[in-house]
Amino acid sequence: MLGNFTYCNPTKLYFGKGAVKNIGKELKKYGRNVVLIYGNGSIKKNGIYDEVVKILAECGKTVSEIAGVMPNPTVDKLYEGVEIARKAKADLLLAVGGGSVCDYAKAVAVSVNCDEDPWEKYYVRFEEPTCEVVPVGCVLTMVGTGSEMNAGSVITNHKTKMKVGHVFADESVMPRFSVLDPTYTLTLPHYQMVAGIYDIFNHICEQYFSGEDDCVSDYLSEGLMRSLLHSSRIANKDMQNYEARSNIMWTATWALNTLVSRGKTTDWEVHMLGQAVGAHTDATHGMTLAAVSLPYYRHIMPYGLKKFVRFAKEVWNVDPAGKTDEQVANEGLAAMEGWMKELGLVMKISDLGVTEDMIEGIADSTLVMQGGYKVLTRDEIVQVLKECM
Amino acid sequence: MLGNFTYCNPTKLYFGKGAVKNIGKELKKYGRNVVLIYGNGSIKKNGIYDEVVKILAECGKTVSEIAGVMPNPTVDKLYEGVEIARKAKADLLLAVGGGSVCDYAKAVAVSVNCDEDPWEKYYVRFEEPTCEVVPVGCVLTMVGTGSEMNAGSVITNHKTKMKVGHVFADESVMPRFSVLDPTYTLTLPHYQMVAGIYDIFNHICEQYFSGEDDCVSDYLSEGLMRSLLHSSRIANKDMQNYEARSNIMWTATWALNTLVSRGKTTDWEVHMLGQAVGAHTDATHGMTLAAVSLPYYRHIMPYGLKKFVRFAKEVWNVDPAGKTDEQVANEGLAAMEGWMKELGLVMKISDLGVTEDMIEGIADSTLVMQGGYKVLTRDEIVQVLKECM
Repeated sequence: MLGNFTYCNPTKLYFGKGAVKNIGKELKKYGRNVVLIYGNGSIKKNGIYDEVVKILAECGKTVSEIAGVMPNPTVDKLYEGVEIARKAKADLLLAVGGGSVCDYAKAVAVSVNCDEDPWEKYYVRFEEPTCEVVPVGCVLTMVGTGSEMNAGSVITNHKTKMKVGHVFADESVMPRFSVLDPTYTLTLPHYQMVAGIYDIFNHICEQYFSGEDDCVSDYLSEGLMRSLLHSSRIANKDMQNYEARSNIMWTATWALNTLVSRGKTTDWEVHMLGQAVGAHTDATHGMTLAAVSLPYYRHIMPYGLKKFVRFAKEVWNVDPAGKTDEQVANEGLAAMEGWMKELGLVMKISDLGVTEDMIEGIADSTLVMQGGYKVLTRDEIVQVLKECM
Repeated sequence: MLGNFTYCNPTKLYFGKGAVKNIGKELKKYGRNVVLIYGNGSIKKNGIYDEVVKILAECGKTVSEIAGVMPNPTVDKLYEGVEIARKAKADLLLAVGGGSVCDYAKAVAVSVNCDEDPWEKYYVRFEEPTCEVVPVGCVLTMVGTGSEMNAGSVITNHKTKMKVGHVFADESVMPRFSVLDPTYTLTLPHYQMVAGIYDIFNHICEQYFSGEDDCVSDYLSEGLMRSLLHSSRIANKDMQNYEARSNIMWTATWALNTLVSRGKTTDWEVHMLGQAVGAHTDATHGMTLAAVSLPYYRHIMPYGLKKFVRFAKEVWNVDPAGKTDEQVANEGLAAMEGWMKELGLVMKISDLGVTEDMIEGIADSTLVMQGGYKVLTRDEIVQVLKECM
């Protein structure tokens, strides 16, 4: 690694069966007023809601609620939550749900004490909070986004057709604690599980496919990818396999808590394309990434050939004997395609509701990142999106 | 991963050339009284001392010093440092040096406000601090121990011939911040560099060679080992190669900051053997580990054959075609031996000053760990030590 960097990630993680019982000692560190944040109410069906509410009551907390956080949380929902948290004089925001609920809690956390419009400040101008940030805790029920141990927060604005992620630099935006109980993920539908698995895989790819220098981070990424491929194949056939689901949950956290980007540049163009598709279709995040990945990677492969060869050999065990670099790299991507189909991922944006007439609008919503092996032009974005149909 | 666990590592790391300039903002968080802790004075020759003292002065700190911390810090030196820190009413202990200096600073940190004998409390009874822990910051000048981002602290008692490491569970023992500037390590002698490299490698092995379950941690360990092998070969030939030294420095931190032990059992018997040799010879830590490793691993290999086969294939690229598991495992250890000799590591404890008549005493000083593939008997310890001669 040639670059300078800072690493700090103070989130305390409680991992394993029954880990939620640890939140009592965390709750003691904060004031009386807790705002409980959750999504569509599935936590009321599977008992997690009751479990958390019981602990909050035992700790003598006054609980307000923000319910109905949607899979792609909107800016209007953010405004609504900020009002609730202000009224409650929130000392702690406790997110119980998947990445969207965690992302949303962080967006509320930086907005409660903010005088400006948070959408403008954080998601248009990408500023850091200048006000006090309300502490966030997470009880994770879905795996993929890594939101439980980072300072990232994605919010969607339907008016401007933008789905924007902001990774805050300020550590105080990171959850103070997160509970990761793999058993909470066992009731998820297969579609959600594999979308989450691909989200994890792509988080690693976005950080891996960038830069030319030799860097520990890439070796760690390869380890995470190998572990994820192994466990995903087990979980795909046997969703109730605790060991595999547990490995997947832990991989998700480390795929996006800044570790594997230390000392290197990163890409994130697949996320920009996928998020643009998401803003126009409201499709599941991981599936939007799956549907745009291969055309994008095949498009940039000639510009980052050496890394794609390494990917093929180290992640997919492609034997390079007697082959050109292009052949090895293509075999790696073909192996990745095979795995994606095995999982049953959505491989085309047309299967997510995108029609030909939407392509230009999606291209307009696609931010262009600078860290990939090829910085896309507007024409290339349109071309890649057409290849995703 | 099948186990439950907690992960929390709040140490803030500043990495790269010139990273020391960041300590100014950290120093602001603590009171006026800083105790500067360092070793044999090499930091006065290479300019690091002047650089740190200048920043302390700019921040208006009152500075006391504990100088002359030895490579294997002793309990007598600990008592001396505790007195200095008490007199100085230390608000921060700033360790500038290698792992021994950091370890020592942590030992002082938990002892300043402790009413009992710290050796008895922490290194005999292995208790957690029940008093306020003085914050520690580190400026690292040598690579290997990982002490910059963990709560471990090794202290040697020459009277009882014990070199004992205590990994505290309390996060407050971890350094609050650490500065990792690879250029600080470029002036080290080759002997110290390779001893540090082997220390890192063995930290990973101690966590890798334990347990039967499928665990993300083992994949991360393989990534770290592959990166370390690659960079160590470059650094061995070209000690001034910044990129390689930088990768080695970062690997050292992640090899022993608890990440790669999450969700699994661990061994640490090589450290118990090596530390016993160290207590009797005062030899360089990494070299004691190098000199005992292969006889130990060859001894336990039949009991953990599956893992040694995986090690051979994933870390050393041994081709298993047409070979028995024993052959594959042995080829892996042979490849490891080749790499160790290439680096010029000490391969025999007799080369560290151990004589036949010391074996029984070293065996008496060797703690027996429970997590390895074979829990050693007293006879096996003696046998392994004899094979190390």
